[in-house]
Amino acid sequence: MRFFRTASALLLCAALAPLATADEGMWMPQQVPQLAERLKALGFTGDPAQFADLTGFPMGAVVSLGGCTASFVSDEGLIVTNHHCVQGALQYNSTPERNLMIDGFLAKTREEELPVGPGSRVYVTTSVTDVTAEIRGKLPPKIADAALDRLLERRVKARVAACEQGGGKRCVVAAFFGGRNYFEIARMEIRDVRLVYAPAAGIGNFGGETDNWRFPRHTGDWSFYRAYVAKDGSTATFSKENVPFKPKHRLRVSPKGASPGEVVFVAGYPGRTQRHLTFEEVREVVNWQLPRSIKLAEEQIALLEEISKGDKALALKAAGRLRGLNNGYTNQRGVLEGLTRGGALALKEKAQQDLLAWIAADPARTAKYGGALDTLAKMQAESEKTRDRDAWLGGIFSSSTYLSAARTLHRLSIERGKKDDLEREAGYQQRDWGRLKEGQERMQRTLDPRLDRATFRWALLHVAGLPAEQRIAPIDAAAGLTPGMAKADAEKAIDGWLDKLYAGTKMGELEFRMGLFEKPAKEVAASTDSFVALAVALHPMLEARQEAGRARDGAYARVRPVYMDALIEQAGGLVAPDANSTLRVTYGVVKGVDGKDGLWLKPQTTLKGIEQKHTGEGEFDAPDVQLHAIQELRSGKTTPYLDPKLGDVPLNFLSTVDTTGGNSGSPTLNAKGEVVGLLFDGTYDSVSSNYLYEPVGTRSIHVDSRYMLWTMTEVDGASHLVEEMNR
Amino acid sequence: MRFFRTASALLLCAALAPLATADEGMWMPQQVPQLAERLKALGFTGDPAQFADLTGFPMGAVVSLGGCTASFVSDEGLIVTNHHCVQGALQYNSTPERNLMIDGFLAKTREEELPVGPGSRVYVTTSVTDVTAEIRGKLPPKIADAALDRLLERRVKARVAACEQGGGKRCVVAAFFGGRNYFEIARMEIRDVRLVYAPAAGIGNFGGETDNWRFPRHTGDWSFYRAYVAKDGSTATFSKENVPFKPKHRLRVSPKGASPGEVVFVAGYPGRTQRHLTFEEVREVVNWQLPRSIKLAEEQIALLEEISKGDKALALKAAGRLRGLNNGYTNQRGVLEGLTRGGALALKEKAQQDLLAWIAADPARTAKYGGALDTLAKMQAESEKTRDRDAWLGGIFSSSTYLSAARTLHRLSIERGKKDDLEREAGYQQRDWGRLKEGQERMQRTLDPRLDRATFRWALLHVAGLPAEQRIAPIDAAAGLTPGMAKADAEKAIDGWLDKLYAGTKMGELEFRMGLFEKPAKEVAASTDSFVALAVALHPMLEARQEAGRARDGAYARVRPVYMDALIEQAGGLVAPDANSTLRVTYGVVKGVDGKDGLWLKPQTTLKGIEQKHTGEGEFDAPDVQLHAIQELRSGKTTPYLDPKLGDVPLNFLSTVDTTGGNSGSPTLNAKGEVVGLLFDGTYDSVSSNYLYEPVGTRSIHVDSRYMLWTMTEVDGASHLVEEMNR
Repeated sequence: MRFFRTASALLLCAALAPLATADEGMWMPQQVPQLAERLKALGFTGDPAQFADLTGFPMGAVVSLGGCTASFVSDEGLIVTNHHCVQGALQYNSTPERNLMIDGFLAKTREEELPVGPGSRVYVTTSVTDVTAEIRGKLPPKIADAALDRLLERRVKARVAACEQGGGKRCVVAAFFGGRNYFEIARMEIRDVRLVYAPAAGIGNFGGETDNWRFPRHTGDWSFYRAYVAKDGSTATFSKENVPFKPKHRLRVSPKGASPGEVVFVAGYPGRTQRHLTFEEVREVVNWQLPRSIKLAEEQIALLEEISKGDKALALKAAGRLRGLNNGYTNQRGVLEGLTRGGALALKEKAQQDLLAWIAADPARTAKYGGALDTLAKMQAESEKTRDRDAWLGGIFSSSTYLSAARTLHRLSIERGKKDDLEREAGYQQRDWGRLKEGQERMQRTLDPRLDRATFRWALLHVAGLPAEQRIAPIDAAAGLTPGMAKADAEKAIDGWLDKLYAGTKMGELEFRMGLFEKPAKEVAASTDSFVALAVALHPMLEARQEAGRARDGAYARVRPVYMDALIEQAGGLVAPDANSTLRVTYGVVKGVDGKDGLWLKPQTTLKGIEQKHTGEGEFDAPDVQLHAIQELRSGKTTPYLDPKLGDVPLNFLSTVDTTGGNSGSPTLNAKGEVVGLLFDGTYDSVSSNYLYEPVGTRSIHVDSRYMLWTMTEVDGASHLVEEMNR
Repeated sequence: MRFFRTASALLLCAALAPLATADEGMWMPQQVPQLAERLKALGFTGDPAQFADLTGFPMGAVVSLGGCTASFVSDEGLIVTNHHCVQGALQYNSTPERNLMIDGFLAKTREEELPVGPGSRVYVTTSVTDVTAEIRGKLPPKIADAALDRLLERRVKARVAACEQGGGKRCVVAAFFGGRNYFEIARMEIRDVRLVYAPAAGIGNFGGETDNWRFPRHTGDWSFYRAYVAKDGSTATFSKENVPFKPKHRLRVSPKGASPGEVVFVAGYPGRTQRHLTFEEVREVVNWQLPRSIKLAEEQIALLEEISKGDKALALKAAGRLRGLNNGYTNQRGVLEGLTRGGALALKEKAQQDLLAWIAADPARTAKYGGALDTLAKMQAESEKTRDRDAWLGGIFSSSTYLSAARTLHRLSIERGKKDDLEREAGYQQRDWGRLKEGQERMQRTLDPRLDRATFRWALLHVAGLPAEQRIAPIDAAAGLTPGMAKADAEKAIDGWLDKLYAGTKMGELEFRMGLFEKPAKEVAASTDSFVALAVALHPMLEARQEAGRARDGAYARVRPVYMDALIEQAGGLVAPDANSTLRVTYGVVKGVDGKDGLWLKPQTTLKGIEQKHTGEGEFDAPDVQLHAIQELRSGKTTPYLDPKLGDVPLNFLSTVDTTGGNSGSPTLNAKGEVVGLLFDGTYDSVSSNYLYEPVGTRSIHVDSRYMLWTMTEVDGASHLVEEMNR
């Protein structure tokens, strides 16, 4: 095993960049020691090197849930993450009679802990290795673009296979800086995860969509899992014989929380940022991608709200999706506002012109970097020609779980038929089969033909309206659509076709889908199931698009690293790579921010805000037991979680740490590595920083550890967990 | 003429109270020099004495509009006040085709200036004289309560008559400290007032009811009148021959506005505060008065909105009333919230207990003040026994303009019949006849039988529900109501009666009302007009109530001054009297305040907030021409009104000055006496200070002079007025 400290020499040797913007950067842990001076300037007195040691404290305790971050907070596998990160587990264990998403859940004993559903995992990063040379080294001369992409993918797969040898691990070879660097990340995979405690929605989701991405905030966004392993310590699926996992490192939750001006760190797995896009690429995001996504989200939200109105069971099935749509909708509007206000796009253009001028100013640079930006601009323009069709070719699958399941199963049958596992498409290799199966099982809870048909129909109406040169021929043929068709005619044709489609399928039945898992490609291709047949009919077009994508990706693999080399050299060497779901560390200070004109958002909120916002219904419905506990506090009851300066229990706080989706649930650490809070959101004005970092107004939102501990002891009767964490 | 400086020796000689709460107090101008140390502590370097000289600068320029404050800002009678203070003038000059309340108004020349409607006045305070000895001195021993009240009223009227001798003046003898002190205030009365400039509602009322009493605020709440007099300088009604009034003093509008931390003064005519009520009296406000008023306002707002829906002409007639109701509704809710949060009532009770203990601790004090609070408590309890009937006996008149006009005209006929003008009821003396006539004229614009009937019906339904021991017998008799009647029966009886009432009256006709003006009491009493007959029928009950009121007021006139003596002695001598529509000065600093949990309201707002709030409709509809001007500013156009620290034009600001209704339109002055803004509102959290001053959160809201000047020059084309003010 090789550790973080052996990371890319280039990164480690890079000169310290001047102290430009304060806190930008989701840093790779091994970069943190280079930030020593910046941290010192913020008042940090600890040793930055502690964050570089992946197997040490505190990084060894920070885990991924695949989409969210979490951390071990006891020696017996107790994990803390966000309430909004355990929605799947709550939904999985809910029934119309017992809605854990509303009521919350608390296991009083280990026996009461609930399995969180198939496919849920805890990933503990165990090593990070620089494999750039292996992946990008010794490339054949004059290799075609598509072939280059294939070769890189094959090398990545080979590395992953070697890494996962022996089992119990999941490995990923992740590209950094647009493929300029590759790191192999090995993770222990814990497969028996159980729900321990989630507060009621009136605490964990207090404020709901209204307050989402907003501050002042009053959300108790925490929940607890526990990781279980086999008695011998190896990873295993759920079994009553399993025992709590004993992590090498665990964090301690501070009863002191965080205070204004304090330096804090967030360690986690941020999902995706795109700060190193070219100007032309960002312009496309602003002019087309975001407006389109926002409009489509609006339509889908209206559709799902309409269809689930008055039907409790259907509403339950649609809840997660609706929450995701609302969340994304608000986020995207925030991004679009951020990218269109204050001439943000012009700033990006200016930065690119500066880069071009910097390249042109030196023949050596021109030799190295000249032309890269031109190439990227041309490729961008090319991709825009078929953007509508390309988007909907993906969109129809996300609109219909029936269709995407059929596609997955058909594709799997083809890939399984290949003998060389390395030749199989990523996501369909042997290592993926178990997860694919679990995905089909998990899917069953939210599957509903009425929901599916409604959203698929909505997508098809859009597909029917595509311009003549961007048609999806197999859909046209099957549904009887033609370009320029009147809307009423298209609706009629689609409705008639959907009648047949849903009448002729068993895709809604788990057993049927499971049956397809083992079948050879020929047999699947010959299936008379209507959705399988549709997936089969779409296959050639998808294949062709994939091949075109390979050629494009191969071309990007040549040019984007050159562009990134230029950017990094121009910046003086130290640049944080875009987020890519790998472990990162970001630092900042607890600090308020300007709100709307005339408003200053203070760095902290308190229980007082719950009293002010509580309406007793909808999104602002604090539980009676909490209101009672606040009343007791007001009447003089003492608690160690009171902030003496505020004269109240602090709830949420703002900091300048640089985070994004995927960071949710991340522990917020003080200089001693203690958990002073959990990261759970960014402000609305911050979300555009995913594309262009805005140094003045960007803030992350955390829940203060004191609110969590106060609620656990005074409201939710979870003192036994607090005691466990204190052991 | 005697001036302010001759004011009550007691007040002038009072020892300086310790520096307790920061900025409480709407001070009588002559008290200001005593505040020198407090002002110095705030950083004020000027001479406080300048505020004591009523005929000097700046106080000589501050005038009353009767309900609002205003000030002279040019040598040619130009007056600035709030936009919301000229609503009557805008409504008076509006038609369904040309709605000045929406579009605003600008006179490009003197000739275009519009008369603001009958009865509108500008009052210039010319002297204030302590007349306590004359009014309260040498009282006959053992005089009965009602007789005492009569005697005091007669003395007051005599003083007023003497003061007004010669004409052109309006005098008032106002009670301070609950009748402990009396001051005669003489005011020059300017009767030809014209509308010069009012911005569009999208500026002057930007934010509407949503932002009313709120901050951050972005309201351009200014408008301009001009005062005209006869050529010889004497006051006169409207005539083309009249010339602009040349004030002795006028203010200069500063192009620098106000900045955070700066000491500011507000000079104006605050209407009413009740900070010296007893605990029992405040408790009645909290437990009965406010909840009742809030409920009734809700009902009336709903009623008026319903009835004026879809009827433009009716909506225009109801607009002013609706605005007043909404304003009062929000205010009263704020007062109630303020008086019920944080144990405010308990604080008042504690203060009263402290006062009682302070009295009891010293036999001399006990001899002077003992029993006063007991007496007040008993009187309060007594008045509560008939509070519902007493309230509705007034309420029916405010619910029906037809009925109140009939009552006024009937009462007038009785009072006119008396030979001794001093025997006539206050409000019906010879000096009032002209104004009463103008009131009848002004009324005509908003009179509508449908509106009147709807609100009268609403009031009668409440009257029908009064308990058996609190009935209004003449109404019962006329409408056929009985206690405990089923609601449907009451409605039926009332509707039948109203059919007859409105069919049998000419009260809606101006000519008819004017005809009643001259008629003797007997003839009026014999009128067959249904509303006059109703007023006549109600007269004995109103008389009886008035007589009871006289007895109560006489008793209060004995005991309340004793209570106030105690309060003032306990406070060390320097106490600001409750507001009573007389000229006051208050000081404070420009300063932000805590908002809802997690929010700090900054002291200033900027044009940026208009861009953020503008929706293009309803209450947030900034005019295109303004948005265009902002755009030009954003594109680099320069303006002298830009605040360099904010990088924008400042709009509204908060200060700690202590104001209330009536102060609206008051000039906000800097240390040099320059107008840096106009006071126009208080924050929601401040309004309860009318009863109990809250020293931490109380803030007034001002519009910055820079926003006014910027809009006048860059948006509204009113540069000629800016030039006039600069001359």
